[in-house]
Amino acid sequence: MKLKNPPVNSLSLELLTELVISLEKLENDKTFRGIILTSGASPAGGCLISLTCDYRVLADNPKYVIGLNETLLGIIAPFWFKDTLMNTIGHRASELALQLGILFPPAEALQVGMVDKVVPEDQVQSTALSVMAQWLSIPDHARQLTKNMMRKPTADRLVKHRDSDIQNFVSFISRDSIQKSLQVYLGKLRQKKG
Amino acid sequence: MKLKNPPVNSLSLELLTELVISLEKLENDKTFRGIILTSGASPAGGCLISLTCDYRVLADNPKYVIGLNETLLGIIAPFWFKDTLMNTIGHRASELALQLGILFPPAEALQVGMVDKVVPEDQVQSTALSVMAQWLSIPDHARQLTKNMMRKPTADRLVKHRDSDIQNFVSFISRDSIQKSLQVYLGKLRQKKG
Amino acid sequence: MKLKNPPVNSLSLELLTELVISLEKLENDKTFRGIILTSGASPAGGCLISLTCDYRVLADNPKYVIGLNETLLGIIAPFWFKDTLMNTIGHRASELALQLGILFPPAEALQVGMVDKVVPEDQVQSTALSVMAQWLSIPDHARQLTKNMMRKPTADRLVKHRDSDIQNFVSFISRDSIQKSLQVYLGKLRQKKG
Repeated sequence: MKLKNPPVNSLSLELLTELVISLEKLENDKTFRGIILTSGASPAGGCLISLTCDYRVLADNPKYVIGLNETLLGIIAPFWFKDTLMNTIGHRASELALQLGILFPPAEALQVGMVDKVVPEDQVQSTALSVMAQWLSIPDHARQLTKNMMRKPTADRLVKHRDSDIQNFVSFISRDSIQKSLQVYLGKLRQKKG
Repeated sequence: MKLKNPPVNSLSLELLTELVISLEKLENDKTFRGIILTSGASPAGGCLISLTCDYRVLADNPKYVIGLNETLLGIIAPFWFKDTLMNTIGHRASELALQLGILFPPAEALQVGMVDKVVPEDQVQSTALSVMAQWLSIPDHARQLTKNMMRKPTADRLVKHRDSDIQNFVSFISRDSIQKSLQVYLGKLRQKKG
Repeated sequence: MKLKNPPVNSLSLELLTELVISLEKLENDKTFRGIILTSGASPAGGCLISLTCDYRVLADNPKYVIGLNETLLGIIAPFWFKDTLMNTIGHRASELALQLGILFPPAEALQVGMVDKVVPEDQVQSTALSVMAQWLSIPDHARQLTKNMMRKPTADRLVKHRDSDIQNFVSFISRDSIQKSLQVYLGKLRQKKG
């Protein structure tokens, strides 16, 4: 499955719907493993999608930054983003990453544990394939139950608080001050791109 | 206390009974500290025993691998193995180690935090003794209460879910498919040993 | 805000009262960030104060050790010291640090994550200022809510168990054996200082 709408895959409603349909199909494919290969920047939602995967391979290009940069936009990463990040890089590193909205370049992403492997851009696909081969060699049923044991508490917490989280987010994001803060950020981005 | 039945200390009922009796005796010895020195491979249950110790010293020999390799056998590490591993090496490293059933050689075991020290094989015992001396120099009552504060939640969780965990395990391990999977694994081991 | 009563800032009732008043004033200052710069040793309570900060800068001087050394005094770090340490350096490192009462010199403190930066003594202040500038550049409201999301569970737990914790501590510290243990430790300190 490839997200390709260069130069940017914005998480539009259309893209997300496509993604959900593709993932539902994949779930019925017994050989599915969630390995993500990233040749591109993964801020905010893109970072979260990669964190939910089993393994992250990132192309070694300083342009490809990854992180939950919500505070830079004046908003707050949802608690289930935070939970998922903490499971991946631990409490203290998450605290710094989330408060400062850090977007990690490849070497830093690897060091903090945000990604599992950094390889030259032309080896991303072959590396992902060889990692995938290793995962496929593990008895599938046992691996899936083990994964479930590790990740279910976090998923359960999301499902349990899902409705209140949506309500909080909608009321927060609708505030005038927040809308203004988002406009400032988007303005800066546009300026940067010339 | 030494487990010596070279080349392999299988966790037979006999060995486990002996172990429990020895541990109960040791608990009454006020100077007891749980330092494990390993010259040998520690898969699955052997790894768990070492994780429950205060400190792990491993001989630097690539044959001495350590890890929870349950998935490779087609089975699942119990939740209290998982809890103990997570306390030792963190959430993300546990996820990889458990799903892939990784058996870490000494250098990798040290890097991920599965052991605390790796030394040449002939220095395992002297290293353990000097580590032990450091632990013995700490006021005992305060150290024990501190250890209890760190480990009690995990132990309590095991005790609370003990009966259901036993039932789950027995019913899981009795399934035809699982028995078959174990036979395949043991067959491979035998083949490997010639 | 500077604590300066060289050579030692003991946490006397007077100092603590002053500290609380200063912190309450600072809380009303919107630009407040908790960055600590340490030129001095931070044992026990001093370490806890630094752990509650957002960022820790330590002068590179082997005399400036930092850690929760309660066991060495024959006492036990309170659970909320333990929680705060675990959030900073993880479970396993906390277990070793607390049981052995480790006081980390700068390089080790940095490696285990007890501090975030170690710099030459004459650069402590300038480093803290430049770190502070980075934190000030983040939209403030979003950063504060994010910090709250990370730290509130730990603070809530302290508040919830505060009364019983005080009672436990008072009854523990009043015991003859503990008073004796403290006297021994203080005696050693005096001897060391000549």
